Amino acid sequence: MNKNNYCVIMAGGIGSRFWPMSTQKLPKQFHDILGTGRTMIQQTFDRISQLIPTENIYVITNQEYVGLSQQQLPEIPVENIVGEPAMKNTSACNLYMAKKIENVNPNANIIVMPADHLILKEKAFLEKVELAFEITSNNDYLVTLGITPSRPDTGYGYIQFIQENNEDYSKVKTFTEKPDLDIAKSFIESGDFLWNAGIFIWSTKSILAAFKKYLPEMTNQFNNCEFNCAAEKECIDQIYPTVSKISIDNGILEKANNVYVIPANLGWSDLGTWSSVYANANKNDDNNAISSKNVLTYNSNGNVIRIKNQNKAAVIDGLKNYIIVDTEKALLICPRDNDQLIKDYVLDLKNLKKGERFI
Amino acid sequence: MNKNNYCVIMAGGIGSRFWPMSTQKLPKQFHDILGTGRTMIQQTFDRISQLIPTENIYVITNQEYVGLSQQQLPEIPVENIVGEPAMKNTSACNLYMAKKIENVNPNANIIVMPADHLILKEKAFLEKVELAFEITSNNDYLVTLGITPSRPDTGYGYIQFIQENNEDYSKVKTFTEKPDLDIAKSFIESGDFLWNAGIFIWSTKSILAAFKKYLPEMTNQFNNCEFNCAAEKECIDQIYPTVSKISIDNGILEKANNVYVIPANLGWSDLGTWSSVYANANKNDDNNAISSKNVLTYNSNGNVIRIKNQNKAAVIDGLKNYIIVDTEKALLICPRDNDQLIKDYVLDLKNLKKGERFI
Repeated sequence: MNKNNYCVIMAGGIGSRFWPMSTQKLPKQFHDILGTGRTMIQQTFDRISQLIPTENIYVITNQEYVGLSQQQLPEIPVENIVGEPAMKNTSACNLYMAKKIENVNPNANIIVMPADHLILKEKAFLEKVELAFEITSNNDYLVTLGITPSRPDTGYGYIQFIQENNEDYSKVKTFTEKPDLDIAKSFIESGDFLWNAGIFIWSTKSILAAFKKYLPEMTNQFNNCEFNCAAEKECIDQIYPTVSKISIDNGILEKANNVYVIPANLGWSDLGTWSSVYANANKNDDNNAISSKNVLTYNSNGNVIRIKNQNKAAVIDGLKNYIIVDTEKALLICPRDNDQLIKDYVLDLKNLKKGERFI
Repeated sequence: MNKNNYCVIMAGGIGSRFWPMSTQKLPKQFHDILGTGRTMIQQTFDRISQLIPTENIYVITNQEYVGLSQQQLPEIPVENIVGEPAMKNTSACNLYMAKKIENVNPNANIIVMPADHLILKEKAFLEKVELAFEITSNNDYLVTLGITPSRPDTGYGYIQFIQENNEDYSKVKTFTEKPDLDIAKSFIESGDFLWNAGIFIWSTKSILAAFKKYLPEMTNQFNNCEFNCAAEKECIDQIYPTVSKISIDNGILEKANNVYVIPANLGWSDLGTWSSVYANANKNDDNNAISSKNVLTYNSNGNVIRIKNQNKAAVIDGLKNYIIVDTEKALLICPRDNDQLIKDYVLDLKNLKKGERFI
């Protein structure tokens, strides 16, 4: 394995669309949401650790989840699991991690990836990442993996690329946020759009140069700190409250003119909703996705059924295309088509007296 | 209060049609199934204790439920809560209790009633019971309260009476078990049928004479025992295994020719199914019967919703006319129309490996 290659797993999300399975105390990335035996962050680690030395794998998450991350990823050195004192979107955490890694290895290449996405085609993924590292080692390029789209999904961001040669990668023309259906359809038809999976590969040199150019104030803030020493935490705690809340897409990638995309067919899903979990989960003969033992269904199909307590029985009769999630603290029953409303349910619950404790 | 009047509350049922709320460990009669703040057996006690001295109120139940009955009815002397060593239907328990009560008061009148029925018209009920005691004090009659039927229900037994005078009670012609719908309709049209609510009033003299005549073997078995003394339990444990399993209706009332019925409009329901609970429970603006706090419903109506853990949240979207019952050990979701299938679900669960523990 190339010792200049590093990975940063971004694991700071709250996953409120997966309530009540996912809660603020135990968000989606720490759940085995597909019922495969490994949590999402563990699957992400398992995948990338085939390519990158364990000691070069970092996790950036909220301070609240440092302990959870350590428990679930005991292979990673504890000092590589880094807690942010506040949620500041993805620019700040990427700058923070680039500074930390540059400090230990100025020749580092980094792959940055979310902790909670599904990638079925592991071999293709690893090959594309190796290609990306080769590119970023030899060029001042910011590289992203662009997912070959399979449908005009309105829930994803799109990357438009410039088809100018037969290479395995292309220059990015634009980043587009979630489009409406007509636009998404035209994107698919044009053939020059890919899904933005939030997977980025760059050298510390290139990304720090881009930060200096496009987010100079944030760069100055982080330059005040020393990294990988006792003073780091205090300095980070001090600058974080005033750091800009901006995504790496908006802050850097949409502005930079050295962004390249590698088209990749990865069997990828962001597992952003219960419907996408349903689509990717194992289903039984009745097309129910049930990860719990002791569940009996009658005249029921197309459901996602999650009973957290494996010793609890469930009998479900007459439900079609529903989400049924039962935890110690809450029960959710709703049509699969309404999975986008779960965030609203949670808000409504918060408005109930003392509702905070369910979330 | 008349010190010759006694009550026997029959509380031996298992209530499997109310799974998972009702379980073998904690059956229906010990639940506040309507969400009124008192369990069914407590409501039964509250009602009858207005007429009968507390020390004259007895509970006959399975030995397993003696402790529960004591907990829920601390007003009753502990020796009045009697445990049967086996389920033997209603003849044996009625003979047992008649013998016990005769032993302390040979002039006793007894009202026998189930622990788990709903009676809304308390005043009418108490008046009819007083009338019944008056009748049984002065006549060798076995008296039952017959409920004025409001619909051709096929789930109840019927009592046909002989309309021969303008009195408040009539001689019973026949007892009929659950009829089919056409017959039930003809019963209602004829005007001389009432529902059998399993509420009986008799003197110990009359009922013991009837047992001697119609169930002589059982009478001999119980005559071998002494009651209200140290030897009682051992003797009962000895005879019970060989005692006939027969209902009081089949064993005595259908044969006796001194059975009288008092028609009564009591707002009565046996609460035999979740549907009857739904019919009798308080409902909100969406016609949902919810006895739990912290339940949010969307686009849902006509449901019975019971979340046993009052600290648990529930979000229910898009269900109409369902039963949703959540306990620590099991979750049930089924159409209200399928409430008769709950016993089958429970059997299916028993067939699952180690399924017994859910029941």
